[in-house]
Amino acid sequence: MDQQPSTPDPALTTLVGLAAYTGLAAFGLLAARSVDAPDLGARQTLAIAAGEALERQQRLLDLVGVPGPEGSAAVMTPFDGALADFDARTTPSGWAEGLLKSVVGLGVAQDLCRELAAGLPDGAAGFVAAVGEPRTDDPATAVLAGAAAADGVLASRLALWGRRVVGEALGLVPVLLAAHPPLAALAARARAASDDGGASAQAWLVSRLTAEHTRRMDRLGLAA
Amino acid sequence: MDQQPSTPDPALTTLVGLAAYTGLAAFGLLAARSVDAPDLGARQTLAIAAGEALERQQRLLDLVGVPGPEGSAAVMTPFDGALADFDARTTPSGWAEGLLKSVVGLGVAQDLCRELAAGLPDGAAGFVAAVGEPRTDDPATAVLAGAAAADGVLASRLALWGRRVVGEALGLVPVLLAAHPPLAALAARARAASDDGGASAQAWLVSRLTAEHTRRMDRLGLAA
Repeated sequence: MDQQPSTPDPALTTLVGLAAYTGLAAFGLLAARSVDAPDLGARQTLAIAAGEALERQQRLLDLVGVPGPEGSAAVMTPFDGALADFDARTTPSGWAEGLLKSVVGLGVAQDLCRELAAGLPDGAAGFVAAVGEPRTDDPATAVLAGAAAADGVLASRLALWGRRVVGEALGLVPVLLAAHPPLAALAARARAASDDGGASAQAWLVSRLTAEHTRRMDRLGLAA
Repeated sequence: MDQQPSTPDPALTTLVGLAAYTGLAAFGLLAARSVDAPDLGARQTLAIAAGEALERQQRLLDLVGVPGPEGSAAVMTPFDGALADFDARTTPSGWAEGLLKSVVGLGVAQDLCRELAAGLPDGAAGFVAAVGEPRTDDPATAVLAGAAAADGVLASRLALWGRRVVGEALGLVPVLLAAHPPLAALAARARAASDDGGASAQAWLVSRLTAEHTRRMDRLGLAA
C-alpha cells in the first residue's frame, strides 16, 4: 500500500507522538543546560544540540503531515505528562548531572522509538531516516565527555548518576507500553521481526535499550 | 573592495559579536518560556521561535566566517556578561511577563543591530539579509498577543511591564557604545547616512529604537 500522508497508520501516529513529545522534552533539557553552561563555547554547542533535537522532532512530525504547532500538539497530547515521574525522580545536582540526564534520557527515548519503528507495516526506514541513527559525534556527548575526562571525581559521580537515570528511563518502558496498546503491538511485531526469539517483547526491548546505553556510556568515557 | 571572509571588517566582527550574543540570549529566554509554557501548543510554538533565533544567529556568524562553537564564542566574548544588569533588573513575575521580556529584549537588540549596520562601509544589506526585518508574524508575538487579548487585567499589567523592560533595554545602548568604540563609530556613520540630522548619534539611535518599540507593542495589542 502506498504511503498516504493524509491518513497515516494509527501506529505510526502514536509512535510519532511519543518521539515528538520526547524530542520536545530533549530540546528543553538541552536548552536549559545551554542557559546555565559554564562557558560561552559550551553554551553555543548545547544551543545547537537543542536546535538539532527540535529539527529532528519537526522531521518526525512531517511523517504524519500535521500542520502547525496546534497539529503537532494534538499528536503529542496522548503523551503529555508522561515524563513527569521520570523528571521528579531524576533531579540533577549541578550542571553536568543535568546534561547527562538529557543525553541519557534523550538517547533512551530515541533508541526506544527506533526499535519500535521496526514493527511498522512498512518497516522502519522512513522513521529512522527522520530520527537518525545514534550519532557518535553528538555535540552534547562531546561537551560532557570533555568535562568528565578533565575531572576523575566528576566522572565517577556521573557514572553512578547515569545508572540512576537509565534505570528510571527503562522503568518507563512497561508503563508506556501498557498505556498505549499501539506501542505494545509495535513492540511485539518488532521482536518477531528480530532474530532474538524467546523473551517477552518488553524484556527484549529493555535488553536492546540497555545494550545501546552501554555503548552510549562508552562514548562518554563513563562506566555503564 | 571585495568582501574578504577571511579578514572581515573589525566593525562588522564587533557588530556580529553583539548580534550573536544577544541572539544566543534570545534563544535561551524563548526556550525557557517554551519549557514552562501553559500548554503543548505554546510549548511547541516557543521552541520553534527559539530555534529560529538560533538559526538567525548562525547566519550572522557565517558573515564573519568563524568555524565551530569555539570560533563563535571568540566573536561573542567581548559581550559576555553585557546583559547581566538588564537581566537582574527585569526579573519577571510569571510566564507572560517572561515572554514579553524575551520579545521586547530580543526586539530591541535586533533593531539596534540593524540600525548600526547602516554604518558599515558596504551598507547594511548583507547584515539585514542575515538578521531579517522585523516580522509581523513572529510566533512568540502571536502567542503573547493571544494571551493578552484573552485577559484585560493581564494586558494592562503587560503594558506596564513592557515600559519597564524597554527602559532597561534602551539604558544599555549608551553603555554598549561607550564600551565598544567600533559600535559608537557605526552609530555615528549610520546617523550621518540618515536624513535625521541634529541629534547626537546616541539620541538618534534611542529615538529610532523607541519608535520601533511602539510598533512592536501595537502588534502585541499592548499600550506602549
